[in-house]
Amino acid sequence: MSQVFKKHLEKFISVSDEEFEQILSYFKTIRVPKKEILQQEGNLCRYQFFVLTGCLRKFLLNEKGVEVTTEFALETWWMSDNRAFEFQTEALFSIQAVENSEILTIDLESQEKLYRDFPVMERYFRFVYQRAFAAYQMRLKYLYTMSKEDYFFHFYDLYPGFVQRVPQYLLASFLGLTPEYLSELRRKKRS
Amino acid sequence: MSQVFKKHLEKFISVSDEEFEQILSYFKTIRVPKKEILQQEGNLCRYQFFVLTGCLRKFLLNEKGVEVTTEFALETWWMSDNRAFEFQTEALFSIQAVENSEILTIDLESQEKLYRDFPVMERYFRFVYQRAFAAYQMRLKYLYTMSKEDYFFHFYDLYPGFVQRVPQYLLASFLGLTPEYLSELRRKKRS
Repeated sequence: MSQVFKKHLEKFISVSDEEFEQILSYFKTIRVPKKEILQQEGNLCRYQFFVLTGCLRKFLLNEKGVEVTTEFALETWWMSDNRAFEFQTEALFSIQAVENSEILTIDLESQEKLYRDFPVMERYFRFVYQRAFAAYQMRLKYLYTMSKEDYFFHFYDLYPGFVQRVPQYLLASFLGLTPEYLSELRRKKRS
Repeated sequence: MSQVFKKHLEKFISVSDEEFEQILSYFKTIRVPKKEILQQEGNLCRYQFFVLTGCLRKFLLNEKGVEVTTEFALETWWMSDNRAFEFQTEALFSIQAVENSEILTIDLESQEKLYRDFPVMERYFRFVYQRAFAAYQMRLKYLYTMSKEDYFFHFYDLYPGFVQRVPQYLLASFLGLTPEYLSELRRKKRS
């Protein structure tokens, strides 16, 4: 499964098979069952996660104590509470496996060592964060310029497989819709 | 004024005076008067901007045709439409000077050359994007967990100088408040 990671690296940088094996040694591979909590809000944020297979979600509790899903991560996506990770403080978000998943994890110390030993990884992560930052800007654009209905249709067209794949109550929470309204929109989309 | 940039680089990487002069040569320094549009939504996104002095804002037109300010950039902040910049496509946002400003600009070709000639700049921009991405996550957290009133008070405590500095109708737009309600909250804060 580590080939998923190698392919992702190769989108941005060149690494030989030997280098890849060395780079991989800075990470741990873990298997987590569906619903497992990988990061609890309020606990020290020790890891970044890279999804080899499966799906993670990031969530918080809103002022009413209701879980709101703020991000999903499918294969080749990174996920962490990035501020809490960089400063090694308490996480403001929780992270949970949505499916049985295979995940690469790295802690801050290992990542700093990785940068020192393989400076090309600075370029890789520069691209990872650059695109993640850009994705948030796009998302803000959609939130400000589209109705929730249009946002759903847009999202459906961009990620049809994803819309089918994740539990609908989580997708509804992510899109800011009630599960009932989401299922109405899906019916509309199919008709 | 380029010392503002040197100091910012030195937060993340080490550069000698000589290296800094070389690095600086990949950028252009421009002075823009208040209200000047640096990037028009719909036009090719050619530049990233770094604020040496002054202030920029990023905005879009919402579905009602009203300008919504989505980001501000003060001294030492970078601003661009990062997706449009990376893929050299049409910008989804406009960028305007809020004050008379002195700005560093860089185009994509120069930035790629800079990375090749000074790989340490990968580390610098890795940090820039990492923190910008993390800031967006924090912002989402506040949006989901705080009332608009609490968000304003939080924002005021974090950036008291900034709240005094920018035009109040822009700050109101950024915070999702009417100018009238913002001025009511400011009175409350002072009392």
